[in-house]
Amino acid sequence: MPEMNDAERRKFLLDGTKTGKLATVRKDGSPHVVPVWYDLDGDSLVFTTGAETVKGRNIKREPRVCMAVDDQAPPYSFVMIEGTAELSEDPEELYHWAKRIAARYMGQAKAEAFGKRNSGEGEVLVRITPSKIISYRDVTA
Amino acid sequence: MPEMNDAERRKFLLDGTKTGKLATVRKDGSPHVVPVWYDLDGDSLVFTTGAETVKGRNIKREPRVCMAVDDQAPPYSFVMIEGTAELSEDPEELYHWAKRIAARYMGQAKAEAFGKRNSGEGEVLVRITPSKIISYRDVTA
Repeated sequence: MPEMNDAERRKFLLDGTKTGKLATVRKDGSPHVVPVWYDLDGDSLVFTTGAETVKGRNIKREPRVCMAVDDQAPPYSFVMIEGTAELSEDPEELYHWAKRIAARYMGQAKAEAFGKRNSGEGEVLVRITPSKIISYRDVTA
Repeated sequence: MPEMNDAERRKFLLDGTKTGKLATVRKDGSPHVVPVWYDLDGDSLVFTTGAETVKGRNIKREPRVCMAVDDQAPPYSFVMIEGTAELSEDPEELYHWAKRIAARYMGQAKAEAFGKRNSGEGEVLVRITPSKIISYRDVTA
């Protein structure tokens, strides 16, 4: 399987509206995975979530996380990023990223509305610093 | 967010070539998530993997797993399934599912070749019995 270089991976992660499947670990030690909207800040993955959601609580307890992003059609490509998550409640930073991420996934016209919703009371910004990255393109080619 | 009923969820899980993002837990307690090709056997999720891959080894140690399947375009829909995985090395069962899954993801013409590859030496069949399911459609509608 050919590996992506850094530029290819960056393009892959930012093209279109691919979601990140964020895996965290529950208090009982079992895994949890749900889709999130994300963006890149340099090499870091950035997304917002409710502090009291399952993933929000899991990250607070266990900051080691893993995210998978893939193209679900032949020839299939995917990126897996393991890393450590940091939480921020800074309102300006939170709104900046929530709006930017909303523009990516919902379009510019809806960016402000979704940006406000996703940076309101109880929301937090999550930043993942990668520690390990795997990225394969055209897995079945 | 509207929830899917059982028929809607089944259709969603089987339509097209959506991959399952399978989350497992590593020996060191950190989460791991990668895409897998899957099918349904009744209510169970079925897929094949190498016994010595990271996910294969993780499942053997900790059978509690979680899988996310989503539509990565507006209005966004997703299913999350938590459950317990069982492994089988029965060659007939393994080839049956590997071929069927390959037909789904690669087309009938390539089913035999990919089915053989994914049921060869070192491959195992994984069957997830769901314990908890969440399924939302049209999240942003």
